[in-house]
Amino acid sequence: MDGIGTNRLEAFSDGVIAVIITIMVLELKVPRGAGVEALRPLVPVFASYVLSYVNVGIYWNNHHHMLHVTHQVDGSILWANLHLLFWLSLIPFATSWMGEHAFSPVPTAVYGVALLMPAIAFYVLQAVIIRAQGSGSTLARALGSDIKGKLSAPLYLAGILLAFVDTRISDAIYVLVDIVRQSQWSAEVAVEV
Amino acid sequence: MDGIGTNRLEAFSDGVIAVIITIMVLELKVPRGAGVEALRPLVPVFASYVLSYVNVGIYWNNHHHMLHVTHQVDGSILWANLHLLFWLSLIPFATSWMGEHAFSPVPTAVYGVALLMPAIAFYVLQAVIIRAQGSGSTLARALGSDIKGKLSAPLYLAGILLAFVDTRISDAIYVLVDIVRQSQWSAEVAVEV
Amino acid sequence: MDGIGTNRLEAFSDGVIAVIITIMVLELKVPRGAGVEALRPLVPVFASYVLSYVNVGIYWNNHHHMLHVTHQVDGSILWANLHLLFWLSLIPFATSWMGEHAFSPVPTAVYGVALLMPAIAFYVLQAVIIRAQGSGSTLARALGSDIKGKLSAPLYLAGILLAFVDTRISDAIYVLVDIVRQSQWSAEVAVEV
Amino acid sequence: MDGIGTNRLEAFSDGVIAVIITIMVLELKVPRGAGVEALRPLVPVFASYVLSYVNVGIYWNNHHHMLHVTHQVDGSILWANLHLLFWLSLIPFATSWMGEHAFSPVPTAVYGVALLMPAIAFYVLQAVIIRAQGSGSTLARALGSDIKGKLSAPLYLAGILLAFVDTRISDAIYVLVDIVRQSQWSAEVAVEV
Repeated sequence: MDGIGTNRLEAFSDGVIAVIITIMVLELKVPRGAGVEALRPLVPVFASYVLSYVNVGIYWNNHHHMLHVTHQVDGSILWANLHLLFWLSLIPFATSWMGEHAFSPVPTAVYGVALLMPAIAFYVLQAVIIRAQGSGSTLARALGSDIKGKLSAPLYLAGILLAFVDTRISDAIYVLVDIVRQSQWSAEVAVEV
Repeated sequence: MDGIGTNRLEAFSDGVIAVIITIMVLELKVPRGAGVEALRPLVPVFASYVLSYVNVGIYWNNHHHMLHVTHQVDGSILWANLHLLFWLSLIPFATSWMGEHAFSPVPTAVYGVALLMPAIAFYVLQAVIIRAQGSGSTLARALGSDIKGKLSAPLYLAGILLAFVDTRISDAIYVLVDIVRQSQWSAEVAVEV
Repeated sequence: MDGIGTNRLEAFSDGVIAVIITIMVLELKVPRGAGVEALRPLVPVFASYVLSYVNVGIYWNNHHHMLHVTHQVDGSILWANLHLLFWLSLIPFATSWMGEHAFSPVPTAVYGVALLMPAIAFYVLQAVIIRAQGSGSTLARALGSDIKGKLSAPLYLAGILLAFVDTRISDAIYVLVDIVRQSQWSAEVAVEV
Repeated sequence: MDGIGTNRLEAFSDGVIAVIITIMVLELKVPRGAGVEALRPLVPVFASYVLSYVNVGIYWNNHHHMLHVTHQVDGSILWANLHLLFWLSLIPFATSWMGEHAFSPVPTAVYGVALLMPAIAFYVLQAVIIRAQGSGSTLARALGSDIKGKLSAPLYLAGILLAFVDTRISDAIYVLVDIVRQSQWSAEVAVEV
């Protein structure tokens, strides 16, 4: 099957991710008062915005790197990409809910689900691209055994479950996965590409 | 008449579709409570979001494929494309209304109209492009008799009317058309392009 | 002075115009009721959305055509373009206000101002591009005496003033200018490019 | 380390900046009344929108110019760019708060912080790009001693502190920095590129 270039796939994904990143800010509701104390209730909302911004930023970076070594797209890649964007589009909702109910177990667990699902969807997109390219492709080699990628899902699962014990453990895990995932591609792509 | 390249047409359409897809999420209002039961009223809203996301995603995919075999645009193509984007831009409204009033006949019928109109507009855009290219063009051949494309409109019409009998029949039809439309291009484009 | 390519200018303008066109839809607030009568108050909001959509669509088309015959941008073109986008960004506000207060003179006049200002800004952008290219350029020739372009401003002014007599006259003028402007480029560009 | 082209970095930044610029308009809430007096409370909101629009517009212009002389991006540039976009994304919040509480010290100071942070982030991005390119690069030469760039931070700091003396001094400083920054690149890039 002939494929087509990645340009429009990238442009569309950039558009969706740009809007996702920006509408999360709309949740930082302008306070009624004009004093410093009016900003205090915004602190957890701001913290969850930062966490989600970094998370979506990592997806954009990884997406950028992955498509840089992808040269053709077919129907299954288009759909795997739309699937990833779908789950990313739910992050603003989960971010807002956790931001307004910091330290509540259900919103913290739902936020974990909102991070777990795009992680799985990214993994699926990666697998679909590798299948289309063959196992000797640059991407397949760049990923290698992809230990860090495979660690994300169990860590998020742990974060989701531990939200019912202590939400601060979940928050720490979510931050930890971000740090691990960020370093992943930087290192591997630098070596292989 | 000389035409011009499709790049900016695609970029602009991508931008509009990316924003449409993302503002539908804004309708998933953050619940006041922090428990699982606070998510329950969101279930129909979420279901209609998924349906509309898939629908807009199919339009993006089909648009992508159609413009891939289009090499020049003229004024009539620009307007036929803006006409399609206009109807797509109303999908978030119809999605929200149906999401908040699941199983109500009028919102379900209006949602059907919101799906029918872009289907017609896509058909018009396709016809305008084929007219500009000539009937021997790749697009004309790729579409062939376009049976599935022509089936969408009567099916949506049936869904609109049956909303006044039982909205679940309409919902089933809307999902069915999505499945049929999705498989359409994947098959035909793979063969012809 | 060396200039640079128009790609990013076009991409950025496309992004802003795409968001402008889409946030106007957010003003179509989802009605509380589920019956047909719940849609009635939306009729003027919808009508002003259609008018503004066509208007912004014309700007996008004209911008597309103008930059198609522009090959280099310098600082003054960047700023003239940002100036145009600024006035376009106020159209959603004016559209909503008129939509909620159809037949009220002040919102109808303000809407006219919101159409007049981008018309002036487009004229300025055009002049800045022609100055940079020289009077023998394709754009200068394509525009010719640009009678229709020069007609917009006095017509909008008439619409603004007549809003205090009868808002229906203003609405008719706004629609009329759209029709005239639409036909302008289609004809001229087709001949000259 | 091999780098990759700047296309997607620019496209993504354009998307985010386009959305930032446009959601600021959403703060211009449609007034309930239909008379001229209904627009009066919007005057400070509009003034702060204009100031922020020009500010974000300057960032877009400068970003445009800087990436025009950047040919490769690596991981550190991607992150320095996301860092800049993060701070830019907070400008709509600060704009709205100051717009609703003009002449209040805390919102005026917070607005100054919202201008200071992207100024620092832009400086960091610039330094990261120069480091990647080497000190003999076009960008390094174009910037020269970059006196005006280095002036922004202390001026914004003064504006933040003086908000607690008289907010009009702060407002004047914010406008002044815009004027200085605008003229910076226009002059330098014109000479060097």
